[in-house]
Formats: sequence, structure tokens, C-alpha cells
Amino acid sequence: MTMPLKNDTFLRAMLREPTDHTPVWLMRQAGRYLPEYNATRKKAGSFLALCKNDELACEVTLQPLERYPLDAAILFSDILTVPDAMGLGLYFSEGEGPKFERPVRDEAAVAALAAPDPNDSLGYVMKAVSTIRHALGGRVPLIGFSGSPWTLACYMVEGGGSDDFRQVKTMLYRRPDLMSRILEVNAQSVADYLNAQVEAGAQALMIFDSWGGALADGAFQKFSLGPIRKVVDRLQRERDEPVLDADGRVIGQRKVRVPIIVFTKGGGLWLEEIAATGCDGVGLDWTVHMGQARARIGDRCALQGNLDPMVLMASPEQIRAEALKVLESFGVPQPGAGHVFNLGHGISQFTPPDSVSALVEAVHSYSREQRRRGASASSL
Amino acid sequence: MTMPLKNDTFLRAMLREPTDHTPVWLMRQAGRYLPEYNATRKKAGSFLALCKNDELACEVTLQPLERYPLDAAILFSDILTVPDAMGLGLYFSEGEGPKFERPVRDEAAVAALAAPDPNDSLGYVMKAVSTIRHALGGRVPLIGFSGSPWTLACYMVEGGGSDDFRQVKTMLYRRPDLMSRILEVNAQSVADYLNAQVEAGAQALMIFDSWGGALADGAFQKFSLGPIRKVVDRLQRERDEPVLDADGRVIGQRKVRVPIIVFTKGGGLWLEEIAATGCDGVGLDWTVHMGQARARIGDRCALQGNLDPMVLMASPEQIRAEALKVLESFGVPQPGAGHVFNLGHGISQFTPPDSVSALVEAVHSYSREQRRRGASASSL
Repeated sequence: MTMPLKNDTFLRAMLREPTDHTPVWLMRQAGRYLPEYNATRKKAGSFLALCKNDELACEVTLQPLERYPLDAAILFSDILTVPDAMGLGLYFSEGEGPKFERPVRDEAAVAALAAPDPNDSLGYVMKAVSTIRHALGGRVPLIGFSGSPWTLACYMVEGGGSDDFRQVKTMLYRRPDLMSRILEVNAQSVADYLNAQVEAGAQALMIFDSWGGALADGAFQKFSLGPIRKVVDRLQRERDEPVLDADGRVIGQRKVRVPIIVFTKGGGLWLEEIAATGCDGVGLDWTVHMGQARARIGDRCALQGNLDPMVLMASPEQIRAEALKVLESFGVPQPGAGHVFNLGHGISQFTPPDSVSALVEAVHSYSREQRRRGASASSL
Repeated sequence: MTMPLKNDTFLRAMLREPTDHTPVWLMRQAGRYLPEYNATRKKAGSFLALCKNDELACEVTLQPLERYPLDAAILFSDILTVPDAMGLGLYFSEGEGPKFERPVRDEAAVAALAAPDPNDSLGYVMKAVSTIRHALGGRVPLIGFSGSPWTLACYMVEGGGSDDFRQVKTMLYRRPDLMSRILEVNAQSVADYLNAQVEAGAQALMIFDSWGGALADGAFQKFSLGPIRKVVDRLQRERDEPVLDADGRVIGQRKVRVPIIVFTKGGGLWLEEIAATGCDGVGLDWTVHMGQARARIGDRCALQGNLDPMVLMASPEQIRAEALKVLESFGVPQPGAGHVFNLGHGISQFTPPDSVSALVEAVHSYSREQRRRGASASSL
């Protein structure tokens, strides 16, 4: 049995409903900057083993929530589970990041691609979602996620990370037919994968378009945003939430919306088009002026972001000052506008853990103060 | 004696004067994709030796002009000559790119920084400019260049390239006083360096803000754009051009403008602010929609760009089609608007040389056709 949510601030902000503070979570909040994470990872033996063990994945997912009053948890997993389940052979080489044994480089490899059954070869992810959801006991919502079809294609074709995306862009420009076929399979795979995460207990979904910003204008719309729109179109947008009586007994179910966040790193020029995919929230990196983003799309989507993760290398006072700039730039959320505080990218492994305490405290306390000031100003 | 220009299309487009075709040059056009470049580099012994030998630097600068009817030459040099002249000890380690022996990490190192005399420790660059200018014999204009103060600071503090800019951003957020002092020295150094290049014969100047796009909104304006504005303010904007009589004898001098181009990679969100630095041209990377950029700032600055360099991996027909999209997106330059065709970043070392022929031919022929069509449309 799943518990109803005690803190639904994140979900309400994503749906642009009023909240008493600005919710905050951090991309990659369960990660190497936490000593307890490194201990669990060591126990697991490797990063992949950690992802594939639902108890340990649950343990690291909850670690940052033990330290900080964050408003959401995010599934601990890897962005490349889907192509791994397609049989490309994901592995991690020391100091070089993720790699695939069998990159997708030719017509035959593209033709052989098929969307994996998420409850089969990706069953370990669903098990982790369900384990985490139960362990959370309704403290905060659980966000599921996937890489975007294009971002997965980058790794699949390059066979790993890349500086210039030469292989994948060569295919895109020379053989757009092959690229489109990969993206079609990826869109179906990502939609199936995310829907299965909702079935398993995810209460919100995020699509990480980490490499959309590497594309040219025009190519972005066709090869990254188009497939994301296909994913969003195919996603289940509601889930059942138990309704309890005064004694905590389940007396029914109600339908609640599953917010979908789309985050294109380097996508600041395309915010209107990203907002038009049908998502509920748009992730922003730190190059975007929060107030301008709100003026551009804040009446259509909630905004998530966008502190430079390197701010966390500064002193607590400096972190507070920079966090306040973001909150002031967004302004007080009026009805119909929503802001979820986050970094503009994943937290650095070199972050001092105390910096995160300073940040979360600053966001919570100052955003409450903003609302009080806003309320007293409007009652004048 | 310097010769008057035979092909001044690039300069006229930069000054938003009418041209009969859209001029084209390519960032890093003298580079590793050309076998003749690799032969000269081998002869020089190393990349740095090539930069420091004016005859060989001149040889590689002219190589792409022998192959392709490009409309401008750009000084062959390294972006890090200025911090090298500051005494930081530039070297290149195989496969790792540029590094500094003595990165600028603390108060003492910052205090010790001083702007180098460009005619002393950077005299080899001025000698190369003058050698190239004479060798060009007025075929096309010669562009001088420098890294932006912030971009130089990134290398100076990081001690080399970086993925996350952790060192330089830690200094920026923790010790903005130190960062401001570095940038003040860099702004003076870059201005002196570029003015000396004009004295030596450069006919246009480009400031490469390669890492401005790594900064957060707000930090970009303060730490990258502000110092660029200081540079632009200090630059000499005119040079003497000889006036010849019908027999080719110099009968006088006239003042001509030295266009300044500012290119912030990843700066598409800040085009209005970049245009307001006082530059003549704004460089665009491929994430920017050319037509939208023209609508935003095309009445104030010429635009330079912005084909994805990876398009050059495609077939000649595909290259032509993508180049036409950029030209169509800009539209026919009306009086007061200017477009210089370029890539959105340096050309890849893996580019087939024939791809560049196809690109230059497409830009020249189609842009002439556009103007003819524009003229006949307006005469209807």
C-alpha cells in the first residue's frame, strides 16, 4: 500500500498551484559529494551494480533526504539503462564515463533496434521505483526519469560521451532516415519506460535532454524536440492516489496528475517550443534569466532551476545571496505560476555537503518571506 | 608598402554596406583538415613553433586561400599567446590540449599579473601579421584576433581546458575581487594586443569569447561582457588605407574603419547585450536562428555565422541545402544589414577538404542569385 503524500509542495508548484514555500530538489542529489553515497557505492562494487540493486538504489535515493529537507526524491538510476536494455552493452571505463560495446553506426545496427519491454529487461528499475516509493512512506514525491530520445541516440551512435558529436551528427546530416528510425525506436522506448515507472510508483517524470543544446536550430526541433513531443503524447498523465479517513484507513482512490518536466540543457533559446510539447514544467540551465523565462513561458509551464552548481563552492553567505537572486528574479508565484528551485545542472561531486544545507535553508526561508511580503503588499 | 584591397566584400558586409555576394570565411580555416597544413606543422616541429615562426604562420594562413575563394584571411596564431606572454608557461601535452605550467590560483599569483607589451613578448605575432599582410598583397582582408578576457581567465585559472570550470568559477563566486583583478589585466592586455595587430596590418578584429556561454546569466554580463566592452572601448577603430592613382602609385591615404566582431559561443540569449558593446559584427553559433537574430540585432550589427561545422561531413548536395537554409534565414541584406557566412564554431579536423569547396561555391552562387531575385522583385 502506498501512503498519501505529506509534503506535496513540489507537485503543487509543478501544477502551478499555490505553495507556502518554493520547493527545492537538486539534480544528482544522490551522488558522489555525499560520503554515505560513496560508502554504498563501494558496497555495491560498481555504479552499474548499484543501479541494478533495488535495495541499494533505494538507500542512496533516500540519503540526501536524511540530511536535507528536500521537497522531492529522484529515482537513482543511470540515463543509459534503456539503450543497455536494447542490447548495446553498457559499461563504465575508469575515468572515461559510460561506453557501449556495440555502438549503432550502420544500417544493420539501426534496423536491429527495438523498444525493450520495460517490465522485462528494465524490471530492475521498476523494482527500484517501487522499493523507493514504499520506503519514502509519503514523505515527498518520487520523480522518475529518462534521457530524451536524442540524448540516448548521442550515446548510442557515439558509443560514449563526445565533445563534438561527430558520429551522431554525421549520421544526422548524411543519413537523416537512419537517425529518424533510431529516434522513433527511442521515443517508443522512453514512453514505455516512463509509463512503467508511473505504474511502479513514480509521481512525476523528468526527461533529460542533456544534449539537445548541441544541435543546430532547426535540427533541434526535428531531431530532439519532435521525438520528445511524441514521448509526452504517449505518457500516462494521471495516477491513483489513496484517500484516507481520519484514522488513516484507505477509503478510496482519487486521480492525480503526474507532472512531466522537460529539461534541455542549453535550450534557453527554445523555451517557447519546449513549453509547447505539452509538458508541465520546463527545466532551465543557469544561462537563462529566470524572470525573462517566466515572462516568456511562465503562464504555460512551471519553471525549474536554475542556480549554477558552482555557486555551491562559495561561502554560505554567498550561496544565500545567489539563491536569493534566482528567487527574486522569478518573483512571488501568483496563481497560475510555479517555480521549483533546482540547480541548472547536476550537483558537482566536489560540492561540500554543508553548502547544500545552506542552499536549502535559504530557499525555504526566503521564499516564505517573499510570500509574506507579497501577501502584505497586496493587502495594502 | 601595403596594397589596397582587391576584394573588400567581407569588410563591406561587416560595415553593413551593399555587397554583390555574401562573403564567407571559416573559423580555423587554416587547420588540420588540410594536408598542406599538417606538412607545414611537421616542418615547424610543433604547434607553438608554428605560431612563433612568422614565415610558417604566413604559409598556413594563406593555404586555405589557395584552395578556396574565401573572402577573408585570419591570422594563424593561438588563443593563449597573451597569458603565455604574461609568463604562465604555455605548453601542449599530447591529446590534452593547451596547459599552463603556472596557473593563476591565489592572491599572490593574481597580484603578480601585468599586461604584456605586445611589441615585446608578443612581437612574433606582430611580425606574423605584417608578413601575412604583405603576402596577401591585397587579395582579401586580414582578420586579427584574441581570446576574450574571460576566456583567457578560464585557461589561466584552470591551467588548461575544463568541462565544468570548477576552479575559475570557484574563484568567481568566492573571490570576485580576485577575478575582477584578473579580468582588468586581461582587458588591458587584449586591447593592447589587438591595437598592436592593427598597427601591424590587421584590417578587422575578432574577439573569441569561447567560454562566455559557460557563465550564468548575470555572471556573464559582469565577468565576460563587461571586460569585452572595456576592450572594445579601447580599440583603435580606424586605419590608413593607401589611395592609388590609375597607374597604381600611392597618391595618398584614407581612413577606413576596422570592424570588430564579438563571438560568444553559447551566447544566443544575450545577443542584444553583445550588440550593445559597440562591436560591428556579432558571431553566432548554430543554435541561433539566423532570421531571429537579424530581427533582434540586425539593424545594429552585422551577423557572422552560423552553419554547424558537422554539416561538412555530409554530401555536397546536403551541404548546399544546409548553407541555403542559413542564407534564406538571413534573407537578402537590405542597406543597413550585413551577413558574413561562417561556421558556428571552428572547422573540424575531420572535414573532407572538398566539402569546403562545395560550401564556398554554394554561398557565393546562391547569395548572388538571392540578390538578383531580390532586385528583380523590388523592380516589379
